[in-house]
Amino acid sequence: MASFKKYCVTGKFKLANIDPAAVPFLKGDEEAQREELEALAVRLDDLQNKLHAEGRRKLLLVLQGLDTSGKDGTIRWVFSRTSPLGVRVKAFKVPSDDERAHDFLWRCHAAVPAAGEIAIWNRSHYEDVLVPVVEGLIDKAETRRRYAQISDFERLLTETGTVVIKCMLHISKDEQRKRLQARIDQPDKRWKFQMDDLSVRKKWSDYERAYEKALAATSTDYAPWHVVPADSKLNRNLMVANLIVKTLEDMKLTLPPASPALNHLVVQ
Amino acid sequence: MASFKKYCVTGKFKLANIDPAAVPFLKGDEEAQREELEALAVRLDDLQNKLHAEGRRKLLLVLQGLDTSGKDGTIRWVFSRTSPLGVRVKAFKVPSDDERAHDFLWRCHAAVPAAGEIAIWNRSHYEDVLVPVVEGLIDKAETRRRYAQISDFERLLTETGTVVIKCMLHISKDEQRKRLQARIDQPDKRWKFQMDDLSVRKKWSDYERAYEKALAATSTDYAPWHVVPADSKLNRNLMVANLIVKTLEDMKLTLPPASPALNHLVVQ
Repeated sequence: MASFKKYCVTGKFKLANIDPAAVPFLKGDEEAQREELEALAVRLDDLQNKLHAEGRRKLLLVLQGLDTSGKDGTIRWVFSRTSPLGVRVKAFKVPSDDERAHDFLWRCHAAVPAAGEIAIWNRSHYEDVLVPVVEGLIDKAETRRRYAQISDFERLLTETGTVVIKCMLHISKDEQRKRLQARIDQPDKRWKFQMDDLSVRKKWSDYERAYEKALAATSTDYAPWHVVPADSKLNRNLMVANLIVKTLEDMKLTLPPASPALNHLVVQ
Repeated sequence: MASFKKYCVTGKFKLANIDPAAVPFLKGDEEAQREELEALAVRLDDLQNKLHAEGRRKLLLVLQGLDTSGKDGTIRWVFSRTSPLGVRVKAFKVPSDDERAHDFLWRCHAAVPAAGEIAIWNRSHYEDVLVPVVEGLIDKAETRRRYAQISDFERLLTETGTVVIKCMLHISKDEQRKRLQARIDQPDKRWKFQMDDLSVRKKWSDYERAYEKALAATSTDYAPWHVVPADSKLNRNLMVANLIVKTLEDMKLTLPPASPALNHLVVQ
């Protein structure tokens, strides 16, 4: 398996140094790749069961990326074998009036995983250091304040038993063009297309810059960012699946000890 | 496929008339049965995608049953192929202080599915006409009032676009004995065992009576109850999977119309 290290955000991070078309996690032919993904999905289901049985720690997967970068597809394929019993997906959309009436971390805190759970965030609190930055709604001082608030929030989570995995799905501008065009051209995909996607696309480099700064500022020892080359859907899925499986394995999950008091109990 | 009609609660319903060991949904050998379940799970994933794409209606699956009747297992196997993107599981436990400070439908209303979603309730508002009835905490008048409140609540849901499926997983007392014993005897299952299960088991016939009355009182045209013979796990899974797939097929889900305004749009 390729190393995650190269894709982990540290120090003076430059998004341009990571090629969205790279396929470091592809080995063998496509059939072998699909088999590996299936095996990882099954393994992930087993590890999720252990996480639930242990009932103590939590896993949070944050997925960020521009439109069509494959957030939904990643969830679909990486968690294709996991029971919905212990996995909760939260999609963060444009904030409602009620959400806007609170601090930006309020709605996120409400959606953190409980003991034994995996929560997947499709977009996240990071939207609040992307959209407002690109649109000029907050100044540099406020942006820096939010970076620090985010890191404090994530420290709270990790110190209270949550392992946090953050992945930015990184696609090229040309790959996005193809995917948006496909949504327009294929009648059964057209419902996914929104005109707003095109206006966001026009600010591509502004978003790349906002991502670069946010990732560099909030990639910490306890909650590091990984940039996932995502032009290849299979590379993207395999990298995220491998990362989650490795993280859960490193947690050394164990079943609660079987109570000896039950050793000879017979049910009537 | 066997008919659901015999297992749908109507009129003068008697739980004793339904054999928990019946296997009306098993055809062929075990391999054929497992293949059918896998095919249904894949079909369910496809239908869930359509429900999401349509983005208008909702599906609520209520699962009730005594301890070890297989609520978790049903969710695991029937939804083994469904992406967690559009399926949310809510497990209702003993009410918290905050939940107790509200009416009994408050926490349930908060957990109903949104447009395009499937919500699965592992236990539900029906616990509030089971435990308090068996424990003598509410009288007959209050019980009847709750039945009516439940039916009113479910009418609201169905009138506002939610299709409601309610399944009681029906096991025999002897099958429960075997399953509880297995939890005690198998070290890797022991974490599931709770001493409290044994005290509930002692009130088996009280619970059966409370179920019988509650199901008869709340099985309506718009939100009927099905009793699922559940001594056989495969029969149980196949019956629930078939019921959900049939329900979604009957909804005649359609993609939103592709906007002709996009017909010749080219992404730059």
